[in-house]
Amino acid sequence: MKIGFVGLGNMGAPMALNLLKAGHAVAVFDLNAAAVQTLVAAGARAAASPKAAASDAECVMTMLPAAAHVRTVLTSEDGVLAGIASGVTIVDSSTIDPASVKEFAALAAARGNAFVDAPVSGGTGGAAAGTLTFMVGGSAAQYEQVRPVLAAMGKNIVHCGDTGTGQVAKICNNLVLGVTMAGVAEAMALGAALGIDPKVLGGIMNTSTGRSWSSDTYNPFPGVIETAPASRGYTGGFGTDLMLKDLGLATDAAKSVRQPAFMGALAQQLYQAMSSRGDGKLDFSAVIKLYRAKD
Amino acid sequence: MKIGFVGLGNMGAPMALNLLKAGHAVAVFDLNAAAVQTLVAAGARAAASPKAAASDAECVMTMLPAAAHVRTVLTSEDGVLAGIASGVTIVDSSTIDPASVKEFAALAAARGNAFVDAPVSGGTGGAAAGTLTFMVGGSAAQYEQVRPVLAAMGKNIVHCGDTGTGQVAKICNNLVLGVTMAGVAEAMALGAALGIDPKVLGGIMNTSTGRSWSSDTYNPFPGVIETAPASRGYTGGFGTDLMLKDLGLATDAAKSVRQPAFMGALAQQLYQAMSSRGDGKLDFSAVIKLYRAKD
Amino acid sequence: MKIGFVGLGNMGAPMALNLLKAGHAVAVFDLNAAAVQTLVAAGARAAASPKAAASDAECVMTMLPAAAHVRTVLTSEDGVLAGIASGVTIVDSSTIDPASVKEFAALAAARGNAFVDAPVSGGTGGAAAGTLTFMVGGSAAQYEQVRPVLAAMGKNIVHCGDTGTGQVAKICNNLVLGVTMAGVAEAMALGAALGIDPKVLGGIMNTSTGRSWSSDTYNPFPGVIETAPASRGYTGGFGTDLMLKDLGLATDAAKSVRQPAFMGALAQQLYQAMSSRGDGKLDFSAVIKLYRAKD
Amino acid sequence: MKIGFVGLGNMGAPMALNLLKAGHAVAVFDLNAAAVQTLVAAGARAAASPKAAASDAECVMTMLPAAAHVRTVLTSEDGVLAGIASGVTIVDSSTIDPASVKEFAALAAARGNAFVDAPVSGGTGGAAAGTLTFMVGGSAAQYEQVRPVLAAMGKNIVHCGDTGTGQVAKICNNLVLGVTMAGVAEAMALGAALGIDPKVLGGIMNTSTGRSWSSDTYNPFPGVIETAPASRGYTGGFGTDLMLKDLGLATDAAKSVRQPAFMGALAQQLYQAMSSRGDGKLDFSAVIKLYRAKD
Repeated sequence: MKIGFVGLGNMGAPMALNLLKAGHAVAVFDLNAAAVQTLVAAGARAAASPKAAASDAECVMTMLPAAAHVRTVLTSEDGVLAGIASGVTIVDSSTIDPASVKEFAALAAARGNAFVDAPVSGGTGGAAAGTLTFMVGGSAAQYEQVRPVLAAMGKNIVHCGDTGTGQVAKICNNLVLGVTMAGVAEAMALGAALGIDPKVLGGIMNTSTGRSWSSDTYNPFPGVIETAPASRGYTGGFGTDLMLKDLGLATDAAKSVRQPAFMGALAQQLYQAMSSRGDGKLDFSAVIKLYRAKD
Repeated sequence: MKIGFVGLGNMGAPMALNLLKAGHAVAVFDLNAAAVQTLVAAGARAAASPKAAASDAECVMTMLPAAAHVRTVLTSEDGVLAGIASGVTIVDSSTIDPASVKEFAALAAARGNAFVDAPVSGGTGGAAAGTLTFMVGGSAAQYEQVRPVLAAMGKNIVHCGDTGTGQVAKICNNLVLGVTMAGVAEAMALGAALGIDPKVLGGIMNTSTGRSWSSDTYNPFPGVIETAPASRGYTGGFGTDLMLKDLGLATDAAKSVRQPAFMGALAQQLYQAMSSRGDGKLDFSAVIKLYRAKD
Repeated sequence: MKIGFVGLGNMGAPMALNLLKAGHAVAVFDLNAAAVQTLVAAGARAAASPKAAASDAECVMTMLPAAAHVRTVLTSEDGVLAGIASGVTIVDSSTIDPASVKEFAALAAARGNAFVDAPVSGGTGGAAAGTLTFMVGGSAAQYEQVRPVLAAMGKNIVHCGDTGTGQVAKICNNLVLGVTMAGVAEAMALGAALGIDPKVLGGIMNTSTGRSWSSDTYNPFPGVIETAPASRGYTGGFGTDLMLKDLGLATDAAKSVRQPAFMGALAQQLYQAMSSRGDGKLDFSAVIKLYRAKD
Repeated sequence: MKIGFVGLGNMGAPMALNLLKAGHAVAVFDLNAAAVQTLVAAGARAAASPKAAASDAECVMTMLPAAAHVRTVLTSEDGVLAGIASGVTIVDSSTIDPASVKEFAALAAARGNAFVDAPVSGGTGGAAAGTLTFMVGGSAAQYEQVRPVLAAMGKNIVHCGDTGTGQVAKICNNLVLGVTMAGVAEAMALGAALGIDPKVLGGIMNTSTGRSWSSDTYNPFPGVIETAPASRGYTGGFGTDLMLKDLGLATDAAKSVRQPAFMGALAQQLYQAMSSRGDGKLDFSAVIKLYRAKD
């Protein structure tokens, strides 16, 4: 299958590589020439613009930092919509707000194209291993159409519902994640201050009602889970600034439907305090530092 | 073994029953005569006071609503400390603050008795089935001594560390639980307002980083988990007022060690808002009502 | 002086009227024909577009709901920048984010025009009476130039600093206002629940360290201040949805400089809960309803 | 008049001095011998116990750190209630919870004594100058009876209502104060980060709806108000740990009436974070340090 791919960052590059490995013909575009070069070396064709990447594609994928980039890539003079053939589907794996998804879908529909949101979870590790989870928003037919393409890059391809619901799923999951992690951090730090061994406390939580991915897989207290970022200085993992971005999307989405988001808004401020003190690049579980005066 | 048991409420009564079933001789006391009668019918001996219940016991258990009750039961004229033989251990399964535990342990030590904190999780269901988790605070020797008794009432008997750490474990676990549930409620309600099917959203969270007991076992959105209180009108389960009590213990414990508890304090206010509007008896997952205007 | 005026809403209309009363020649534009007609009846000239309103003006004023509207009014084909003469100053009294101000100022500067931010406080009452406060961002020379125009509509014309600082002042003031009002509401409701006469409590606060405009002029408890919206069913005044908008600007501005805004973010959620339950049109002091179960 | 005075700390000592200056005969008790000596040098009589201080008094005053101290001073073997004559009124100027006040009043009533709560505001400066505000809880007759005594130590003697309402007034005022200060700190720090001159911003707030004692008299940003603690390194003033204590009383009182206290609970955590990092002795306006990464 001929695929146009725009956005070769930390996530996009390994995703495009997996498309190549699966035997697809991939035309790539990125502003970063080195990133393009790596993909070309692996068998991709370099496109001079998003328009060029889209021009003879049977499917177009985008993987970009924010909605503003998606808008530019779609609508600029050299953009995807200027080059894409009618009937070809655009799959956007960026994490953006659901309202922008609907706007982009309407722009695409006006040209005779489907625009499917398919944000991912699984991080750069999952992108490299081809084990990402894709949360897909679109009609059942659109989902069936894009599934084989996404299957080259991920393990779970979940149909979330209509256009935009892929983003809703991603945003709501990360809202819970940001809140839960802050809660686990608070409780682990409190337990330590009150004299319990953090490993014992972690063990109890993880076999009880306090159990969560944030405690049993990614515990923020150093040494409780050997494979967690906390046990290697909060390096690698999912950066605080990325969590901050996602919580911003969540509280903005809540604002758009006049829904309160008490816990998410407070968690957002805690990660913002981390970013403010210069710790935005650390894994988000480093939020526990706010609770440990000596850190 | 001869066991004195004080406090035959919703938790204490089935716990004492399980001691009888295991073949222990149990002397029971409670202010509620009907509760005493039920236990006597099952083979217990009625004691006229905590002192009487303790007087020839080889182990004394207490299961009471709050620290003030434990203090009275221990120290009043007719109290446990007035009747207990030197060397006999007192096991308190009430959920109370760690500072009171240390105070009570000192009072008991002055009489030559050990005071072991052993709060439980598992609810009335676990109490009836004998599958409670006990979080035990005390020396290794004390733990070994009380384990066989607790094993008649529970499945996991966890040694948490020194005196008081059983309570620390319980409080920290429930702090995480209260925060996580409020976060899951917020995210599920937000997702629904943004148009995703709550079952689909729940399914995604539960196979992703948003996973927690609050989402995969006890999801607060009606219909997502058939066995959760949310699917039967928030009846049964763990009451909002009980969660409120435990979050009060957590934030007070945090205050005592000058540790911030941002997330716990906010969650506490949310459950308090529920209690304030008359929903204190509902299961704590009913906190999702604060996010759904029509509820 | 010849003035172009775009935006004749609840605030803009009385402001434009005051310019007419001061003897200025005013060309007005609004999408709402009735609003235009009222101004024409008072002596204004109707312009067919923002461009037409700006075309022979010596000063252009805009008063619009949000940054998106200002962008359109400035940059559309029929917009202000398409018609304005070089050297003429644009004064924007909308409440928008400081980053957009800087963007608009750059666009204007590229055409040889100054863009001065001058958001107001004082509400529709102050707009009608000509007693608004203008918070002006721009160079000292720009401030001196626009001051005489603004003096026809307001009493205090405050120079806040460089471009954008007018909005910063407005946003920060309203951040404090939203937080303080929520705090006063919480304390007044608590005092009443604890049995003190709200008038007595208000009186004590207002002569003590708890004093604020929110308590001594605009107290949210009914009956404490006779002239406050609370004493007339929370009608009139400054709407909850407007406060919500301003707190959104404040927390977004905080996000843009990676500054935490704990109190503002929580207050925002409280006003959002009010909006969510259908009370967005009530005066923002109605936030006290969240604390009084019977309301 | 013969007055017994128990508690000669930073507040109690200057208050007792003012009673002496007004011509009263004062019998003093404190565990700190040096404090007693200072008062004796000024004309007081040293009493060997609270009981002795109360034994021939026509009025007894207490000024103590917390409810536990008041309980001990009243009810111990050598306590006030053991020595006081029937019909003599006890005035407690400590800041404690309203529930304890009612308990103490009942204990006193059983002996034929009135117990009047009369907490103060005005700090050590007001105590020395005799310009304190007293918030008095008790019947109208009790208020009239104690007013002349209090007038020797304060300028405003406010009758708040029945027993306990003096504490309610104090607690609610300080709840507002703690919240407002945190809000002002957040907004001033945000304004500075966004580039406005803090003095200009303070000036605008103080003539606008953002006005409060926390901004116009005690502004937390250094240099905005020359006489505020912020302008002298946050020394003197009202300590963070004292604000923390009062917010604890406020949120506990809210808990006792099942009233949410969202803003107060969050503010409490912010001051707790300050205390946690070792800044508990600084003036409470130092909370602004949480918002300024470099501090």
